[in-house]
Amino acid sequence: MSNRLQVGVIGSSSCEDDITHIAERVGSLVAANGAILINGGRTGVMEAASRGAKTAGGLVVGILPGASKSESNPYVDVIITTEMGHARNAIIASSSDCLIAIAGGLGTLSEVALALKMERPVVTLASPWKIAGTIEAYSAEEAVSIALNLSGYDE
Amino acid sequence: MSNRLQVGVIGSSSCEDDITHIAERVGSLVAANGAILINGGRTGVMEAASRGAKTAGGLVVGILPGASKSESNPYVDVIITTEMGHARNAIIASSSDCLIAIAGGLGTLSEVALALKMERPVVTLASPWKIAGTIEAYSAEEAVSIALNLSGYDE
Amino acid sequence: MSNRLQVGVIGSSSCEDDITHIAERVGSLVAANGAILINGGRTGVMEAASRGAKTAGGLVVGILPGASKSESNPYVDVIITTEMGHARNAIIASSSDCLIAIAGGLGTLSEVALALKMERPVVTLASPWKIAGTIEAYSAEEAVSIALNLSGYDE
Amino acid sequence: MSNRLQVGVIGSSSCEDDITHIAERVGSLVAANGAILINGGRTGVMEAASRGAKTAGGLVVGILPGASKSESNPYVDVIITTEMGHARNAIIASSSDCLIAIAGGLGTLSEVALALKMERPVVTLASPWKIAGTIEAYSAEEAVSIALNLSGYDE
Repeated sequence: MSNRLQVGVIGSSSCEDDITHIAERVGSLVAANGAILINGGRTGVMEAASRGAKTAGGLVVGILPGASKSESNPYVDVIITTEMGHARNAIIASSSDCLIAIAGGLGTLSEVALALKMERPVVTLASPWKIAGTIEAYSAEEAVSIALNLSGYDE
Repeated sequence: MSNRLQVGVIGSSSCEDDITHIAERVGSLVAANGAILINGGRTGVMEAASRGAKTAGGLVVGILPGASKSESNPYVDVIITTEMGHARNAIIASSSDCLIAIAGGLGTLSEVALALKMERPVVTLASPWKIAGTIEAYSAEEAVSIALNLSGYDE
Repeated sequence: MSNRLQVGVIGSSSCEDDITHIAERVGSLVAANGAILINGGRTGVMEAASRGAKTAGGLVVGILPGASKSESNPYVDVIITTEMGHARNAIIASSSDCLIAIAGGLGTLSEVALALKMERPVVTLASPWKIAGTIEAYSAEEAVSIALNLSGYDE
Repeated sequence: MSNRLQVGVIGSSSCEDDITHIAERVGSLVAANGAILINGGRTGVMEAASRGAKTAGGLVVGILPGASKSESNPYVDVIITTEMGHARNAIIASSSDCLIAIAGGLGTLSEVALALKMERPVVTLASPWKIAGTIEAYSAEEAVSIALNLSGYDE
């Protein structure tokens, strides 16, 4: 069994600059703490988090909805092509020891719900929803710190 | 292509008596309108809606998370054993022309989010959440009427 | 739990006239025996079996790889849009109490292997492969008879 | 998009010593060539290939059927818990640029069929089946060499 924590960072495939910045910072901190970044492998928050983790020397796993590796953003190391559309959201939730949801749309909401159902800790940043069971954070640093602590990870 | 509308009725696997009553009434009305009932095939809201539809002479499809037909409630005509756990929620959402969410927990929330993402109309009854894009109804009759209308179904 | 047997009929999306004729006859016999026809909902063997079952007054379930009900052949009563591509083959195998494979290509081979792995009886007709564990039949009548018997179904 | 080739090594969860030895050697060569090892994350051929790749300094991805990371063999770096049972075989096939099937049972056969359907090159070693479209190899070295060449990989 792997000793490395797997942290899911989830959010929309398109986002504003401030959210991009937060996502990149979260990805960077996930990598700096030695955790593997799990994400949806596409654009927006996914790409920003991937770039942050990759730049910090981390390992990035993209779990794609489609069949083609070419749909991945360029910062992904391991590409899982599920060919399962939105059902891949359940795989992202399950494969993450904890998740950080940054802003996000309906796809993100489905992942948050599935992750809570699977009893994974979920930390939110700039969330448009208040879902019972999630923990709200106010900075990338705080989000990553909470996520790691809730996973029983000794920084 | 099938001419019969497929209406998804979703909700928790355990629920209070008043919710059970509403779910059974919704199932009954779905069947009375000639639509096929799609549901998760388990207990609680799923079983109540299945019983309502079956008693009204309807056709009931249960899309189960597990591998065994024996996990189905007794009112299901067609049993789909997905062996896919929570990812089966995406199949319920996709296979429904419209959905009615009755009360519900995290599993239901994931289905609502996935259904909206897939551009299915979602009507809610006694929902604990206010998710943008869903339409709130206040009775079984109203919920079914709205759902059928939004699906372009001519009663 | 449903009292009706669910029989999967699997095969290629394109086929010769003689195979079409066999598939239609198999579908017809499945329906005449009161069983539900499970199939992949597309063209070729799937459409022929669906047409046979539908014409005989049966209930036809199509488990589609894609997202659109319009991809279904016109003889399907219940359309499951899995949006899961080839992974839907596992759902067809699991949801069938027994399967009849008619001729077939690689998709069919994957379904036969998955069904045997799931301990479903698999009867073959005109199979290009000899897979240990399958039972070879030489007519539609024989195939359906064997499949029903192996499912513990009392004709 | 990732620059590293992803090679799937598939086979049974239990196997004889000679097959274990071949699988470990294949995993080792995959890693030595700089490719990522994709596998089912369990025991038998999967564990042997994982151990070979890990010992050679490679990156090992386990795509599990269940929900728990603890079901993984100890040589996996990235654990994908699909919670999708046998349907995870389709994800293994899709996520591999090419596959090497070592001996194998029905699960392996389903993966070979799905991989060929998805147009991935499939090399076999000690295969109990002769499936048109697969390429037979007679040593670990030959299998890896063929697989890499067919993937357009410049050793």
